[in-house]
Amino acid sequence: MLKLHGFAVSNYFNMVKLALLEKGLAFEVNTVHPSQDENFLALSPRGKVPCLETEHGIINETNVILEYLEETQGGKPLLPQDPFARARVRALTKEIELYIELPARSCYPEVFFGGQVDQAIKDKARAELLLGVAALKRHASFAPYVAGSELSIADLMFLYSFDLACTVAKKLFDLDLMAELPGARELFGLMAQNPNFKQIEADKNAEMAAFIAAAKAKR
Amino acid sequence: MLKLHGFAVSNYFNMVKLALLEKGLAFEVNTVHPSQDENFLALSPRGKVPCLETEHGIINETNVILEYLEETQGGKPLLPQDPFARARVRALTKEIELYIELPARSCYPEVFFGGQVDQAIKDKARAELLLGVAALKRHASFAPYVAGSELSIADLMFLYSFDLACTVAKKLFDLDLMAELPGARELFGLMAQNPNFKQIEADKNAEMAAFIAAAKAKR
Repeated sequence: MLKLHGFAVSNYFNMVKLALLEKGLAFEVNTVHPSQDENFLALSPRGKVPCLETEHGIINETNVILEYLEETQGGKPLLPQDPFARARVRALTKEIELYIELPARSCYPEVFFGGQVDQAIKDKARAELLLGVAALKRHASFAPYVAGSELSIADLMFLYSFDLACTVAKKLFDLDLMAELPGARELFGLMAQNPNFKQIEADKNAEMAAFIAAAKAKR
Repeated sequence: MLKLHGFAVSNYFNMVKLALLEKGLAFEVNTVHPSQDENFLALSPRGKVPCLETEHGIINETNVILEYLEETQGGKPLLPQDPFARARVRALTKEIELYIELPARSCYPEVFFGGQVDQAIKDKARAELLLGVAALKRHASFAPYVAGSELSIADLMFLYSFDLACTVAKKLFDLDLMAELPGARELFGLMAQNPNFKQIEADKNAEMAAFIAAAKAKR
């Protein structure tokens, strides 16, 4: 059976978890946290989560896992069949990751874990977030999903990145990114009714307090 | 005919150009530079290069373009057929981009364009580059190519990222990344004999001086 390694507070873990649940695939979870421990690096070369254990071996990097599920497993497709439409979904996914998730992530230590992030890094994150949201506004559909009428991997990346980016932008820059992106709030509202999304939120909330306490203690 | 938008000094442009040349596909080039100009943003939502004009419309993001070429065009395959082997090549490609290219890129303004990068950003880049190279050492084959015996998209990402990362690491941190990665120097040596790689180097060198001068003038 597929085994997903990671933990319920990890946004990338939850992208893959939502894909597995939406596709209706059987899987088990091994709760593990990112580390540079040699044993874990043998599973995940950069020490990150999630990774997916398959009958052939372990696959790392979220979008790579999502492509593998698409190519090898049944259930609801999360990429269109047409190559050009697939390319647009993949480009949206990449844009959200590179231009929204990653700049926001550079500020997580201060926003979520009681640390301090250097002003130069925050200034860079602010500028990149504004350009990233503008790019997404230009390219995305939100009709009601990011790429159009069907849930896709672009939504997985969006749902578990944009919420965190909004928190970063509000707390550090007093910016309301949700208001910059017409349709975003409605998509979160729609997904709040989705039983798989609800389950992931519940699992995340159940682990959150302990995770934040442990992360702060490690600093 | 496929039209590749970008310029000959851009490392991401050259990844796609090498794919097109290795596959033996007909294409034309439209020389254009990254910009936030509205006309260009209509082609490339985040204002970056390269993008690929196809009969169906424009595709942006390098790895997305590479997947599209793989799915729709003939010529030499740059991804294996087996899904698990494909996943490994994609993961290697992603690791090189996220953990080597992007940290190095954060230092390009100082290393290549006569600017100054804040110490906090340089410290972060140094730490990330070391972890990124360690990850690649763990995961890559260099036998002689990054993923094994065949040229793949992981090589495209590697060949046009690692050279720049080495320059950044040497100039800012006095680190020799090439020496950290057994097989890397040999792969560059092998590719130095490849006519397509040579053509791209020649095209790049022909544009380099004017590009650097223009970039410095814009600062």
